[in-house]
Amino acid sequence: MSVLHRSVWCPIILALAATSASAIDLDQATVLDLSHPFNSQTLYWPTSPSQFELKTLAHGQTDGGFFYSSNSFCSPEHGGTHLDAPIHFAEHGKTADQLDLAQLIGPAVVIDVREQVAKNPDYALTADDITAFEANHGKLAAGTIVLLQTGYSKHYPNRKAYFGDDTPNDASKLHFPSYGPDAATLLVDKRHVAVLGVDTASIDIGQSKDFQVHRIAAAKNVAGLENLNGLDRLPPVGASVVALPMKIEGGSGGPVRVIALLPPK
Amino acid sequence: MSVLHRSVWCPIILALAATSASAIDLDQATVLDLSHPFNSQTLYWPTSPSQFELKTLAHGQTDGGFFYSSNSFCSPEHGGTHLDAPIHFAEHGKTADQLDLAQLIGPAVVIDVREQVAKNPDYALTADDITAFEANHGKLAAGTIVLLQTGYSKHYPNRKAYFGDDTPNDASKLHFPSYGPDAATLLVDKRHVAVLGVDTASIDIGQSKDFQVHRIAAAKNVAGLENLNGLDRLPPVGASVVALPMKIEGGSGGPVRVIALLPPK
Ligand SMILES: [Zn+2]
Ligand SMILES: [Zn+2]
Repeated sequence: MSVLHRSVWCPIILALAATSASAIDLDQATVLDLSHPFNSQTLYWPTSPSQFELKTLAHGQTDGGFFYSSNSFCSPEHGGTHLDAPIHFAEHGKTADQLDLAQLIGPAVVIDVREQVAKNPDYALTADDITAFEANHGKLAAGTIVLLQTGYSKHYPNRKAYFGDDTPNDASKLHFPSYGPDAATLLVDKRHVAVLGVDTASIDIGQSKDFQVHRIAAAKNVAGLENLNGLDRLPPVGASVVALPMKIEGGSGGPVRVIALLPPK
Repeated sequence: MSVLHRSVWCPIILALAATSASAIDLDQATVLDLSHPFNSQTLYWPTSPSQFELKTLAHGQTDGGFFYSSNSFCSPEHGGTHLDAPIHFAEHGKTADQLDLAQLIGPAVVIDVREQVAKNPDYALTADDITAFEANHGKLAAGTIVLLQTGYSKHYPNRKAYFGDDTPNDASKLHFPSYGPDAATLLVDKRHVAVLGVDTASIDIGQSKDFQVHRIAAAKNVAGLENLNGLDRLPPVGASVVALPMKIEGGSGGPVRVIALLPPK
């Protein structure tokens, strides 16, 4: 049997995969795309000086008798589904290209606060929410990729619904949920998680003025993943995530393609 | 034992992983970054109207008493380590956002032509090279990610050495190796591989005028990966590759972060 055959079926691997978040058969796994596309509707912070722009360089038949299409583009680093590198809020934190990719690959947990958010759009995840999650699913291991599911990706790219306000160039009236500082402290300083991800525009809530969650994460070189999409397709535990950012040298973040890998049922 | 513990050690999975390119324990695997960084030296085609540009939006202490760094950037889609989406050379081919990510994840083979290239910088991979590889390593399976190792990544980002010429705005005198059309036909039409990757600037050789390899690949929605880095760290068979491109809606390609996963020894 050739090592090259993708169709090799291995019942032992498959059976074990269900009990370990980290054992993934890449060919058997279901691949879920957790990224929004970059287009003219891509959402940036209200104070962003620019948006995503795609410029057509070529599109059509060439003199050589074949079709050719090519574009260039511009984007702020922090918009759409993107990485927050630690240097975004920590002067000596790692840049986008310096992050060890192993940090962005690993078992994921999905903490669902859609019930709380339905009552309070400014909901901030608490340390109690995390200990309640752990009571059900086990203590979070070091290196875990934490994904906070608020349900807000359903509003994307409706700026008014997603940010809670659409006043141009004004970030003072934003209302959306995310992590709270006590939750961030527990996750970062006690559980030593690798990544804080969320399906809203920021790992701090819309009403935050001091960005404490960003600062707590950045201080320990924990990465952020913002504007994630489709977290409702993931189980609370058992998925693995691979988040591969554009390798911008010196970048404070940037576009990131994020996938979840689910073991076969 | 909690499902959340990353340190679960599973000898059965590990033992099997060595015999199947697709069984990867994400936590035990060695992660190799196959992407060059985006910076002011990033190489684009000689006729590219622009280069990579990073613009600082903020970098320093804020009035709020915390550090903050943020940038915006511009880039043509086709430069640095990037994806060629099928629409690049096929009018009805898939765009960057339409590619099924499962196509960009899977077992990789590395075909090493460094000896041939040492004698001929215009070397084009032949169908015979592929059958010789298969005689040693087994027939290529459908869905394989093919990586062609010419050794040229050692020249990057020296434009003259990497492209074989550095005349501004002139692509007529380029000399570098890559795939040849008969190899591409065998790989795409007979072996049904998923991806053609290379450590030079193009899946066609520098002297190609009709871009036949691009056209053969694009016609069958096979993706390209160009300007890969560090393929010398990969075995001929046994690695898995995950290539996650920026999700540019309607894009003909774009920045891609490419990793190889090696099973533990
Ligand atoms: Zn951000
Ligand atoms: Zn290209």
